Amino acid sequence: MRLRAAPRDTRFYDLLTAAAENIAAAMTLLDGFVQADGADREPLAREMRRLEHVGDDHTHALIELIDVTFVTPFDREDIYRLAVRLDDVVDAVDEVVDLAVLYSCTQFPPGVAEQVELLKKAAELTAEAMPKLRTPKDLVPYWQQISEVENAADQVHRRLLSLLFSGEYEPLTVMKLKDIVDGLEEAADAFEHAADVMHTIAVKES
Amino acid sequence: MRLRAAPRDTRFYDLLTAAAENIAAAMTLLDGFVQADGADREPLAREMRRLEHVGDDHTHALIELIDVTFVTPFDREDIYRLAVRLDDVVDAVDEVVDLAVLYSCTQFPPGVAEQVELLKKAAELTAEAMPKLRTPKDLVPYWQQISEVENAADQVHRRLLSLLFSGEYEPLTVMKLKDIVDGLEEAADAFEHAADVMHTIAVKES
Amino acid sequence: MRLRAAPRDTRFYDLLTAAAENIAAAMTLLDGFVQADGADREPLAREMRRLEHVGDDHTHALIELIDVTFVTPFDREDIYRLAVRLDDVVDAVDEVVDLAVLYSCTQFPPGVAEQVELLKKAAELTAEAMPKLRTPKDLVPYWQQISEVENAADQVHRRLLSLLFSGEYEPLTVMKLKDIVDGLEEAADAFEHAADVMHTIAVKES
Repeated sequence: MRLRAAPRDTRFYDLLTAAAENIAAAMTLLDGFVQADGADREPLAREMRRLEHVGDDHTHALIELIDVTFVTPFDREDIYRLAVRLDDVVDAVDEVVDLAVLYSCTQFPPGVAEQVELLKKAAELTAEAMPKLRTPKDLVPYWQQISEVENAADQVHRRLLSLLFSGEYEPLTVMKLKDIVDGLEEAADAFEHAADVMHTIAVKES
Repeated sequence: MRLRAAPRDTRFYDLLTAAAENIAAAMTLLDGFVQADGADREPLAREMRRLEHVGDDHTHALIELIDVTFVTPFDREDIYRLAVRLDDVVDAVDEVVDLAVLYSCTQFPPGVAEQVELLKKAAELTAEAMPKLRTPKDLVPYWQQISEVENAADQVHRRLLSLLFSGEYEPLTVMKLKDIVDGLEEAADAFEHAADVMHTIAVKES
Repeated sequence: MRLRAAPRDTRFYDLLTAAAENIAAAMTLLDGFVQADGADREPLAREMRRLEHVGDDHTHALIELIDVTFVTPFDREDIYRLAVRLDDVVDAVDEVVDLAVLYSCTQFPPGVAEQVELLKKAAELTAEAMPKLRTPKDLVPYWQQISEVENAADQVHRRLLSLLFSGEYEPLTVMKLKDIVDGLEEAADAFEHAADVMHTIAVKES
């Protein structure tokens, strides 16, 4: 049964904002993780897994809300895509943390801290942007800023790849670290994909 | 031209069930493949390629059926997604078999047999679940079981990665085997994605 | 606000054709790139990045046109998918060029030139096919030919993987070259995915 949304139905905005805030929490945790001593990382990895499950719950709640709502505030397919893109961010960083533990990577090249700093910035921008879906013209500075952050992340990622293949590292170490820096770059890309969906929504609303 | 589906139109259920049964056949074949001597593997790889084509045919038949049917039993977009997810499973195992031949991998670490065992289980669960899309509440045990199988597969995959990077294998061997165990994990994930789409369908029907 | 498309609205066909012609330009550029001396490659890589941005502009223009048009010439979702698939092609070759510069790969195994030759062929076929979306039955030879090109590309890719793992190359070199030949194979696959979407469109129109 599909229910007509009340005119001021806030549940879509609330759930999307909660999903974005969960991502911001994941990035703060990631920051602690890459700075932690090897011994302290296991509980941080478990907490990251918990946040990944929280993200899944938000995604499922959004999908169920789309399904039971007769008139959604924007196209169903766009809400679905946005939920999936937000989920992709958390999945990517959860996998990075997981691999770092599994591979016993206790030290990262310096560029990794820069990647994480940019991901924190992207997460803050996204969490602030989400409630503005109600008034899409307020999102203009967000698209500009998220694009700048994504370009900066891309540059850092490229420098890291150059470093990894410079001959300074053993092949097996290159493979492990490449999985990690590629995973962080994937998270940066996922933020931009979420911003693209929000752009599509804004164009349709205008 | 779109035709109205007869009330008891069984073609969607039949095609989805056929696709899932083809996957189960592919997993049985995969099981034989990883146990076979190197010399006997070429015909098994050819048979897998044939099953991959059968899977493509089911997918195309489903997409064409969506397009010509006026009233589909559930949302077009969901049937499309489910067909693609099922296709992803066969594509993943076909690629694994292909790479194993190409890389001349004749011996696998023991965990690979465990991965294949879990994929067989997931395929059986999926084939049994498909006809129950008619009565979605009967799918509840399926979601529980597929999630358990996916978690078990994830654990086996993680143990395999640890083993590959333990220093026991040469770098080139690690690269080859990683492609294979990652491909099998991708197949396990694709089963869960199919189960997620079936969950979405069930929620909308309820 | 959605505008009703004029009966002979050509903007969708024009934009899709422009996107496909941009891909053909990217493939000609790629051909020059893999044949160039190391020293001459930087300006070619910059030009590729420019074409990648042109491709993004076409994609965004298509998405905006979908959003403001009341009656599109075919399903919105299919136009969206086709735009994304075409974009995937340019993204894949842009990334290959980028990695080749970053990794200082100045020499490629001979099969790479064959991959590029096949990509050029696929791009020409796609650019010629796009205006025929108006009269889908004229697309039949295109699907046949694109499938042949994709199968040939697949064979070349497999031979390249065999060569890379033959023991002739150092592990780090294998990793670098594998990223490049896999990226080119991804571009070949993206052409086939675009052809699949065009097939879906044609079936619905018939």
